[in-house]
Amino acid sequence: MRILILGGDGYLGWPTAMHLSKHGHDVAVADNYLKRRLAEEERVPALYPVPELEEKARLWESVSGFKVKVFTGDLQEWDVMTTVFREFDPEAVVHYAEQPSAPYSMLNRKAATLTLHNNLGVTFNLIQAARQFNPEVHIVKLGTMGEYGTPEIDIEEGWIDIEHKGRRDRFLYPRQAGSLYHTTKIMDTDLLWFYVRIWDLQVTDLMQGPVYGMYTCENESLEDLLPFFCYDEIFGTVLNRFVVQAVAGYPLTVYGKGGQTRGYLNIKDTLNCVRLSLEHPPGKGKLRIFNQFTETFSVNDLAAKVSEAAGSLGLNVEIQTINNPRKEKEEHYYNPEHTGLLDLGLQPHYLTDDILLGMLEFVKKHEKSIRKDIIFKGISWT
Amino acid sequence: MRILILGGDGYLGWPTAMHLSKHGHDVAVADNYLKRRLAEEERVPALYPVPELEEKARLWESVSGFKVKVFTGDLQEWDVMTTVFREFDPEAVVHYAEQPSAPYSMLNRKAATLTLHNNLGVTFNLIQAARQFNPEVHIVKLGTMGEYGTPEIDIEEGWIDIEHKGRRDRFLYPRQAGSLYHTTKIMDTDLLWFYVRIWDLQVTDLMQGPVYGMYTCENESLEDLLPFFCYDEIFGTVLNRFVVQAVAGYPLTVYGKGGQTRGYLNIKDTLNCVRLSLEHPPGKGKLRIFNQFTETFSVNDLAAKVSEAAGSLGLNVEIQTINNPRKEKEEHYYNPEHTGLLDLGLQPHYLTDDILLGMLEFVKKHEKSIRKDIIFKGISWT
Repeated sequence: MRILILGGDGYLGWPTAMHLSKHGHDVAVADNYLKRRLAEEERVPALYPVPELEEKARLWESVSGFKVKVFTGDLQEWDVMTTVFREFDPEAVVHYAEQPSAPYSMLNRKAATLTLHNNLGVTFNLIQAARQFNPEVHIVKLGTMGEYGTPEIDIEEGWIDIEHKGRRDRFLYPRQAGSLYHTTKIMDTDLLWFYVRIWDLQVTDLMQGPVYGMYTCENESLEDLLPFFCYDEIFGTVLNRFVVQAVAGYPLTVYGKGGQTRGYLNIKDTLNCVRLSLEHPPGKGKLRIFNQFTETFSVNDLAAKVSEAAGSLGLNVEIQTINNPRKEKEEHYYNPEHTGLLDLGLQPHYLTDDILLGMLEFVKKHEKSIRKDIIFKGISWT
Repeated sequence: MRILILGGDGYLGWPTAMHLSKHGHDVAVADNYLKRRLAEEERVPALYPVPELEEKARLWESVSGFKVKVFTGDLQEWDVMTTVFREFDPEAVVHYAEQPSAPYSMLNRKAATLTLHNNLGVTFNLIQAARQFNPEVHIVKLGTMGEYGTPEIDIEEGWIDIEHKGRRDRFLYPRQAGSLYHTTKIMDTDLLWFYVRIWDLQVTDLMQGPVYGMYTCENESLEDLLPFFCYDEIFGTVLNRFVVQAVAGYPLTVYGKGGQTRGYLNIKDTLNCVRLSLEHPPGKGKLRIFNQFTETFSVNDLAAKVSEAAGSLGLNVEIQTINNPRKEKEEHYYNPEHTGLLDLGLQPHYLTDDILLGMLEFVKKHEKSIRKDIIFKGISWT
């Protein structure tokens, strides 16, 4: 299958490119290095440098024999989107090309404006390109479990049957997110759902939880092909960040009561979820939604797990409760469904002690590069 | 109260400005004449010319003694938004500044892109301006009943209590619109609801049905202060358009089965709904939602009513069923709640024969200006 990956330079984009090409697909990636630029502007470097796309594609071809085509440009520009569609003619598109950080979207007005326009602009151009070049193209869009927020009722997989005053109908599950970033993903879903209904597009919307890890089946022995490993407050996901904090001797920063519970997954599972979705398309005129995570943890759970694993390596880890810079429920009901991807054949990689030890040992190799000053800045969301 | 009206040149914007200033409020209007520009580009003129804002403000002051301050500029530009907030310092804002046509939003990619960026860009800048200049400001946002679509269950007023697997929670009523225009209003609601929760903004979101009429209590004897009266497929609302078609001897164009049912209201009621909302603000940290219409009709009902009223004036009106250029249910359940504004004191002006006769006689005075070629173009939505 010819698969185009938008946002192919990112934490998930490049690992997905290698994974799909290893599985026999013809892969192209497109990116404008927005995330790199924002990380530079905010002075929050990743744990180690990562080569740019042309270099990664060259390295990957040299070790695997598979070619990945690279497009560089801003997909908010219609000309860039059309060039990519004309030259590569994708049968499926994986859409990661969004400003991916919730804290960044709450940083200030300019950051918020960039998040809104970038995220919706790319999604909209993708929809329009599908319409113009190939209405059969399967769009696999990365959404987020954060679209649902933390409701008092069970979270279903995208849809809910509502019985109301003696009548029934089926709706998109109600959405209410905790950051502007997450809200742009809700708005993406609104757009995709509308155009699925009106133009019979074919879309899979993956409601993903926070991802952790850096090793995939494709990169384990290839240092230069590892993804970005961010541990700063803006771009670092919580578990990756806690692992760095444990190695650096920086107390694990639990926001508020620490009962915030979310669905997590290993980066290996992200790749398999995306590939399984691509290899089992929903069919025209369908918006299929999967909840993409494998287990739920509270922040306190994660802190305890990291602390324990680090202890077995002789690291003495402190857990510190700090004032929550976000506005969110710190203790809440959370019971999200997640059977769709298991039904497609997903074999989860759970968060075992071995996995945590592997991450800790990996980060220890880069210990000298850790910049403690970027771990917590206290960006206030309110 | 100092009230700023964004989109103050429009069909509802200018009548609202006069109405609020007559009721003792200090009013400013802002507009960039986008709607005029689009109508020119698409060559769909209104029934009669309407003066620009400076001239309307001069005329209104000369007859009423009330000053309305005029700002001209594109509110998507942050500098324009900040100038308006700095110079006028509003206590409340009525936000009409959106590309208002569903067919226009489905015309082509460029029109769709403009609709998306304009509508969300202005809403977003307004939210950011409220945050920066006056977080207490009451935002009265014009939404649309079209956000709800035509579900199989009763439509509540913005919110719904859902009982699911033995637990309960309250959510935004599920939304699924029939055009990109309507979808941008859903996305506006997503944005406003997020920032109400995170920044305690104060918002009233008015889910308005299609409006008809041209006379208000402020303009009845003042020809130059009447609003735009559009009757073309793009910018004309259905009842205004049918009245013109009846006068022009152009068959009333019913799309498909004509069972499409919506909630309608007289322009006089729009003004009262907006004023009542402004004079009874919801309080900080609240998103209040009203369903703003007074009665429901199917398209067949409207065609029959116009035909009958026109018959009593000696006009022989044909009703013609044509292939539906839209994608929508042509027969459906429709039972929307609408008590919130009645509880605030709204006294509805229903669609009586007298009202229809008044509209027909008004349009007859402009009969020679009617351009039959713009009534139906058959813009396909699919």
